[in-house]
Amino acid sequence: MARNTGRTFFNAPGPTNIPYQILRAMDRPSVDFMGEEFLQVQRDCLVGLKKVFKTEKTVIAVAASGHASWEAAMTNTLSPGDTVLVPESGYFSQKWSAMCEAFNLKVQAIPSEWSDPIDPAKVEAALKADVNGEIKAVAIVHNETSTGTCTDLAGIRGAMDAAGHDALLLVDTISSLGSMDFRFDEWGIDVAVGGSQKGLMLPVGLGFNAISDKAMEAAKTAKLPRKYFDFHELAPENGQMKFPGTAPFHMFFGLHEALGLIEQEGLEEVFKRHEKLASATRAAVEVWGSGNGPTLFCSDAARRSNSITSLAMPDGFDANELREACADNSNTVLGGGLGKLDGRVFRIGHLGDMNEPMMIGALSAVEINMARLGIPHGKGGVSAAIDYLASA
Amino acid sequence: MARNTGRTFFNAPGPTNIPYQILRAMDRPSVDFMGEEFLQVQRDCLVGLKKVFKTEKTVIAVAASGHASWEAAMTNTLSPGDTVLVPESGYFSQKWSAMCEAFNLKVQAIPSEWSDPIDPAKVEAALKADVNGEIKAVAIVHNETSTGTCTDLAGIRGAMDAAGHDALLLVDTISSLGSMDFRFDEWGIDVAVGGSQKGLMLPVGLGFNAISDKAMEAAKTAKLPRKYFDFHELAPENGQMKFPGTAPFHMFFGLHEALGLIEQEGLEEVFKRHEKLASATRAAVEVWGSGNGPTLFCSDAARRSNSITSLAMPDGFDANELREACADNSNTVLGGGLGKLDGRVFRIGHLGDMNEPMMIGALSAVEINMARLGIPHGKGGVSAAIDYLASA
Amino acid sequence: MARNTGRTFFNAPGPTNIPYQILRAMDRPSVDFMGEEFLQVQRDCLVGLKKVFKTEKTVIAVAASGHASWEAAMTNTLSPGDTVLVPESGYFSQKWSAMCEAFNLKVQAIPSEWSDPIDPAKVEAALKADVNGEIKAVAIVHNETSTGTCTDLAGIRGAMDAAGHDALLLVDTISSLGSMDFRFDEWGIDVAVGGSQKGLMLPVGLGFNAISDKAMEAAKTAKLPRKYFDFHELAPENGQMKFPGTAPFHMFFGLHEALGLIEQEGLEEVFKRHEKLASATRAAVEVWGSGNGPTLFCSDAARRSNSITSLAMPDGFDANELREACADNSNTVLGGGLGKLDGRVFRIGHLGDMNEPMMIGALSAVEINMARLGIPHGKGGVSAAIDYLASA
Amino acid sequence: MARNTGRTFFNAPGPTNIPYQILRAMDRPSVDFMGEEFLQVQRDCLVGLKKVFKTEKTVIAVAASGHASWEAAMTNTLSPGDTVLVPESGYFSQKWSAMCEAFNLKVQAIPSEWSDPIDPAKVEAALKADVNGEIKAVAIVHNETSTGTCTDLAGIRGAMDAAGHDALLLVDTISSLGSMDFRFDEWGIDVAVGGSQKGLMLPVGLGFNAISDKAMEAAKTAKLPRKYFDFHELAPENGQMKFPGTAPFHMFFGLHEALGLIEQEGLEEVFKRHEKLASATRAAVEVWGSGNGPTLFCSDAARRSNSITSLAMPDGFDANELREACADNSNTVLGGGLGKLDGRVFRIGHLGDMNEPMMIGALSAVEINMARLGIPHGKGGVSAAIDYLASA
Repeated sequence: MARNTGRTFFNAPGPTNIPYQILRAMDRPSVDFMGEEFLQVQRDCLVGLKKVFKTEKTVIAVAASGHASWEAAMTNTLSPGDTVLVPESGYFSQKWSAMCEAFNLKVQAIPSEWSDPIDPAKVEAALKADVNGEIKAVAIVHNETSTGTCTDLAGIRGAMDAAGHDALLLVDTISSLGSMDFRFDEWGIDVAVGGSQKGLMLPVGLGFNAISDKAMEAAKTAKLPRKYFDFHELAPENGQMKFPGTAPFHMFFGLHEALGLIEQEGLEEVFKRHEKLASATRAAVEVWGSGNGPTLFCSDAARRSNSITSLAMPDGFDANELREACADNSNTVLGGGLGKLDGRVFRIGHLGDMNEPMMIGALSAVEINMARLGIPHGKGGVSAAIDYLASA
Repeated sequence: MARNTGRTFFNAPGPTNIPYQILRAMDRPSVDFMGEEFLQVQRDCLVGLKKVFKTEKTVIAVAASGHASWEAAMTNTLSPGDTVLVPESGYFSQKWSAMCEAFNLKVQAIPSEWSDPIDPAKVEAALKADVNGEIKAVAIVHNETSTGTCTDLAGIRGAMDAAGHDALLLVDTISSLGSMDFRFDEWGIDVAVGGSQKGLMLPVGLGFNAISDKAMEAAKTAKLPRKYFDFHELAPENGQMKFPGTAPFHMFFGLHEALGLIEQEGLEEVFKRHEKLASATRAAVEVWGSGNGPTLFCSDAARRSNSITSLAMPDGFDANELREACADNSNTVLGGGLGKLDGRVFRIGHLGDMNEPMMIGALSAVEINMARLGIPHGKGGVSAAIDYLASA
Repeated sequence: MARNTGRTFFNAPGPTNIPYQILRAMDRPSVDFMGEEFLQVQRDCLVGLKKVFKTEKTVIAVAASGHASWEAAMTNTLSPGDTVLVPESGYFSQKWSAMCEAFNLKVQAIPSEWSDPIDPAKVEAALKADVNGEIKAVAIVHNETSTGTCTDLAGIRGAMDAAGHDALLLVDTISSLGSMDFRFDEWGIDVAVGGSQKGLMLPVGLGFNAISDKAMEAAKTAKLPRKYFDFHELAPENGQMKFPGTAPFHMFFGLHEALGLIEQEGLEEVFKRHEKLASATRAAVEVWGSGNGPTLFCSDAARRSNSITSLAMPDGFDANELREACADNSNTVLGGGLGKLDGRVFRIGHLGDMNEPMMIGALSAVEINMARLGIPHGKGGVSAAIDYLASA
Repeated sequence: MARNTGRTFFNAPGPTNIPYQILRAMDRPSVDFMGEEFLQVQRDCLVGLKKVFKTEKTVIAVAASGHASWEAAMTNTLSPGDTVLVPESGYFSQKWSAMCEAFNLKVQAIPSEWSDPIDPAKVEAALKADVNGEIKAVAIVHNETSTGTCTDLAGIRGAMDAAGHDALLLVDTISSLGSMDFRFDEWGIDVAVGGSQKGLMLPVGLGFNAISDKAMEAAKTAKLPRKYFDFHELAPENGQMKFPGTAPFHMFFGLHEALGLIEQEGLEEVFKRHEKLASATRAAVEVWGSGNGPTLFCSDAARRSNSITSLAMPDGFDANELREACADNSNTVLGGGLGKLDGRVFRIGHLGDMNEPMMIGALSAVEINMARLGIPHGKGGVSAAIDYLASA
C-alpha cells in the first residue's frame, strides 16, 4: 500500500491529531489583534486555560513552543548561581538540566533508572539535606514523554511540605495537560509549563505558563534577564495579556475552538477516555510481551501514563525498523526512543483527539508490521484491546 | 465515549472519506469559469476521467448527482415506449426500473434473488427471445451497492454478442468507478453512469457519463425530452465541455486533485488496495459468521464486491441497532440495509481513501459493539483480518 | 502587476464572492446524510430559504444548478403541447424559451428591446387575448442577468389578475434572490427558481424551487416526464426533503452558514446594502458616460437592477478587451455581454458578499484600465461613487 | 453597512493579508516532523529565505515572533555591559533600546525627530568618537514601522567602514523583508531580524535571523545566556535546522507556499509592485494634505517607505476616530499611531499580498470616512491615485 493512502494514524506522542474544527478555525483572514473581537477571544482562552490548569492564578501564553515556556519558568523566577533540584525521569529531565546550565544555574540531580517513576521520598530527603536553603526550585516533569511515566505530583508536594522547604515547584505538563489530571492550585505548583501541540490538539506555536502568586513575586527580584518572556510584561495588572508585537491570532482562534471541544466533552470525561484508550493499549502490549515481544517500559503499573505508552523492544530487534514499516506500509506514525533509548524503545501516543477505532487501528498497524518483520510477539494483542474496550 | 471524539470512521458505502487535499482544493475563491485557467482544469479532468473509465470516447460531467446521470443515460438514448431489459440485482436495479417507468419506458425485468449475481445466460436468453427487437437497451448495475455484488460485465457483453442483439448497454458504475476495474471500451459499454462521491473521493455534486459513438448517434433521434442533460449540448464537437449556466468550478478543482491522487498511486494499485482491504473484511466476517454472527450476504464468492461488503444479521438481531451503537460509541458510520433488507443487512464500505488501520478500526467498531450488544459472533474476526493483511 | 497578486475582485454577476465562513463550513469530512445531525441542518436550511423567498409554501433544493431548477419548474407543472407566455427580457428569457421548446412546449413570445423592462400591460393584453385558455404558464425572469434590468413582478401579478387568467406564474429569481426584494406569497408566484451561486454566496451546486399549492396540485397531472426533479418525491407530505441518492451535504453546510450570515445582517439590510452599492456604481457610470464613455444599458432608471449593472460600450470599443485588461492588470473579473450583446456590453456584479471598498476597488479597475486602453470616458467616475457613498 | 460584510481590507502594517493558498497549505493534518517529507520542506524554506535575505550565510527560523528574533540577535552576540549604538528612528528603535536594557546592555542613543530618517553621518561620528571600542553593535531598524521611513543601509554600512569600526551591524527587517530591497551580504549586515507576518504573508509564528560568519563567531564567546534561541544549536554544522522540541510544521508548510508565490512573481517584481502601490498612496495623501487634510509624516521624500505610509492628522482631529469609522463603516483596518504618535498619526499598510483595487479600496475607505466625519481634505485623492496607476 502506498504510504499516504488514507488518513495518517498519527500516534506520535506529540504533535497530536488536530480536529478539523480546530484547523478550520485557524484557517481565516488576518484580524485586528487590538480589536475588541479578537481581544474577547483572547480573554476567553485565558479563562478556559485556567480550567484546564485547574487554577485561579495567572496564566499566560507566548508565541513559541513549550520549550520556551520552560525557559520562561526559569528566567522569571531564578538568578544566576541558584541551585535547581532536578529528579531524573528521562530524556526531558535531562533537557531541562541542560537548560538550567545554559542559564548559569546549578543543577542538583536525583539520579534514577528511566524505567522508574520519580520517588517523592528522595525529593524529601534532598530538600531536608539542603540546610542552607541553596535549592531555589524543584524542576519536575509531570508526564515524562520519553518513558510514558507519570509523576505523583501530590506526593512531590507532600515531600516538599514534609521537608518544610520553600523552593519553588516548577512542573512540565507538556504531555499531560488536557489529557491527564493536573491540579495547579491544589498541588501547590508555582510555575507550570504547557504547550499547544499535545492534549490541546493544536499545532506547535503556543507555550503556556500557569504562575502562582509566589512565583509572580519571585519574578520581581529574579536576576536572569528576559524580555519577550517576561511574566510581568505579559500579564499586566489589568488581567489582560499583552503580547510583545503582534498577537499570534490564528493560534488563539484554534485554541478557542480546542477549549470549546474540551468543554463540550467535559474535562473529566476527557481524562476517562484517555485512561480507557491507554488501558486498551496496555492490554495489547501485555499480550505481545507474553510471547517475547515488546513490553511496557515503565516498571510501575500504578504510574503508567495515560497519554503515552513506551514499549521496550525485544533484544535484537530495532524499534526504528518497526516504526518505519508502520509508516511505510500502514500510514501510522509512532514515536521513537529518545536519547539513550533510541532504537530500543518506541512510543505509542494515545493523547488528544483519539477514539476507539483510531486506537485499534494504530495497534493493528503495530501487530501487522511485527508479523511482517518477523518480530516475536504474543498473538492476539489487538483482540485483547478489543475485549478490554468491549467490557470497559 | 462521546460520539464525535476523534475522527469519524466513515465506512458507509458512499459518500466516502474525502482526503484533505481534495477538501482544500475545493476551499478556494470563485474563479472566472470562462477563463483559461479554469478551462484547462476542466479539460484535464475530462482526460483523467477517460483513464478511469478506460475509454477514448466521450465523457461528460454534470452538476448533479449520479442518479441524474442515470436519467441522462436514458433520456438521451431512448424514446417513449421503448423497452429496457433490467436484470434484477438489488435495490438499485429496482430504482432504475422505477426511473424507466417515470419516463414512459417499458421495463422487462429478469427477476433474481438479491443475494445472487446477475446471470449472463439469462440476459442472453432474454435477448434471443426478443425476435422483434423491442428491447432497445440493457440496463445493468455494475456493482450493486445494496448487496455488495459485482456484475460480470465481460460476461454480459459476451451474452449480448452471442445473442446478436444490438441493444444499447447502459451501466451504472456509481459504486465501482475508481475502486474496481471497469473497461468501458473493451467491454463495449454504450453509456456508463458515475458519481463523484464514491471511488473518486469527492462530495456529492458531479455526475458522469461515458458515452460510446453508438450512443451519441442514438442521442440524435431519441425522443425523450431533455435539455440540462443533453449529451450533444454538453459535449459539442470541439471536445470542450459546455455547461448549462455556471460551471461547478469548485467540484472540478476537487476532481482535479482526486484524479491526481489516483494517478499518483496508479489506478491498478488502487484496485489492488481495494481487493486487499475487501479480502481482510471478508476474512473477519467469515470468522464472525462461524459463530452464528453476521454472514456475507452475497452468495457467490467470485462476485463479492471489493468496494462494499453486505452482512446479513443473524435472525432476531437488528442491523440498525448495531449501526447506531457503532456510531454512538465508536464514531463509526456503516451503511444500512436498503429496501426490503432494512434491518436485516448492514454494509461496510471499503472504497475510496482507505488504508489498513482505517479498515481494522472500522471492523473493530463492529466487533466491540457486537460484544456490547450481546450479538453472537465467532471470536477473532479482527485478528483474522490482521492475519490476512500481514500475509497479503 | 502579475495577474494573480492579491485578492481577485470578483465582480462577475455570478458566481459571487464566497465568504470564508461559508467555504470553511463546506470544508469538512463526510457525514451520515441520514443521521439526525445532518437532517437538522437540512431542515434549518429549508426554514431559512422560506424566509428568503418570503413564502410559507413548499421549498425544495436539488443537487444541480439553477438551470435545472428551471427545467424542474416546467416538467412538474406542464404537459407536452402546452403554451408558455415568455415576455422577452434578454439572453435568459431566450434560454428559457429554448428550454420550453426542448420539452415540446409552445412558446408565445412578447418581443422587446433588451434595454427595456418587461411591460406588464403587454402581458395583460396577451392573456386577455388568450380566450381559449391555451396559455398554461407565464415564464418571467425577475432580474435579467444579461441586461441588469429588474422586472416589476407586482405589476405582472396585477396584469394577470386584471386579465382574469389562471396561468401559472413561473419566475426565475436566480440573480435576485437574496439580493433584491422578492415576495413569493405576496406576489402570487407559483414556481420560483433560484440557485446557490449568486445572492446566497455559495458555489454552484444547489438549485431551489419555491412552489405554490396550485403548482403542487398541477404537478399531480402534468405529463412532462421527470424523476430526479419530481416535486412530490422531493417534498413528501411529511415536510422532510428526500433526495434521490446521497444528499449534497457539503452544500447544505455551506447554505446553513450563508443563511446565518443573512439572518445576522438582516434581509432588508442586505437589500439596502445592494441598493447603495448599485447606486454608487450607477453614479460612476453616469460620469463615465457623460464623457462619451460606457453608459447604463437599461433604459428605465426605475428598473435598474441592484445586483448587476450592464454597461454599453461606446461605439468602436470592445467590451471584452476592457474586461481582459481588468483581469490581467487589476485582478478584477467582470461579466461579458451575452448573446447578441457580446463585445458591446460588459457587466459589473455588485451582488452577494460585497462592501464599499470592494465596490470602489472594482470600479477603479474599470477606470484605470479605460485610461490605459484609451477608451473615452468622463473623468471622476470613482470620485462620484465615493461622494455618493459618503453622503448615503 | 454592517461591519463585517464583505472582505476585510486589511491595511494594517502587519499582520498582512494571507493569500488563500498559504492558509490552505497550513490547514493540514499533523506530520512526522522528523520524517523526510517535512525535512525537505524545511530545507527548501531555508534556501528560499536566503534568496529573500540576499545572503549565502546562515539563516534560521524559530517558533516565535520577530521580537524574539531580535532578542536572539542580541543574546547570541553580546555580553552583559556591552554598549549598543541605537540611532533613534521611532517607536521600534525605542523598543529595541528597552530590550537592550533588559539584558544589561548599555544603550548609546542617537536622538532624532521621528519624522526624519536616520542620518548615516551621525552614526559615523558616533563610531569615530568611540576610541576605546566600547560599542559592540549598531542596532538599526531598516523600515521603521511606526513612521513609514526607510533607513539607508548602504549608507550606514559606508559610515561604519568610513569610521573603521568593527561593531556588529544588527538590523530589524521585520516590515521590509519581502517588500523592499534588502541585501544582507552586499550591505555587510551581521544579524538581520525578520518575522513571518509582514512581507512573507503568513500569520505570526516564525521569527527569522540571517547571520554572518562574524556573528556566528561572536556567538561562541557572547556571554548573555540563551538556549531556545541559541544560534549554534539551531544551526548545527550540517546545515540542517534543529528545533528545540517539535518543529512548527504548519508554519513551514505555509512558508513554503509563500516563498513559492514570491518566486513565481519574482522578488524584484514584488518590490516594484510595492513601490507602485506606495506611490499611488502617496499621490492620494498629497492631494488630501493640499486641502488641510492628513499629510505624509516622513519628512524626506527619498526615504518614504514602500511598505507603510504614516499620515499625520490635521490638528484637532483624532486619527483613531477615523480608523474606527473605517473599520465600522467600511471594513477597512488601518494602523494607529504608536507611542507618542497615538491619535496624531495613522498608518496605511501596502505590503504583502496587495494589488491595485485593494489599494484603491482602502484609500477610498479613508476618503469616504473623512467626508463622513467632516475631516478637512483636498478632494480627489483617490482620483490622483487612480491617475498614478493608470500612467505607471
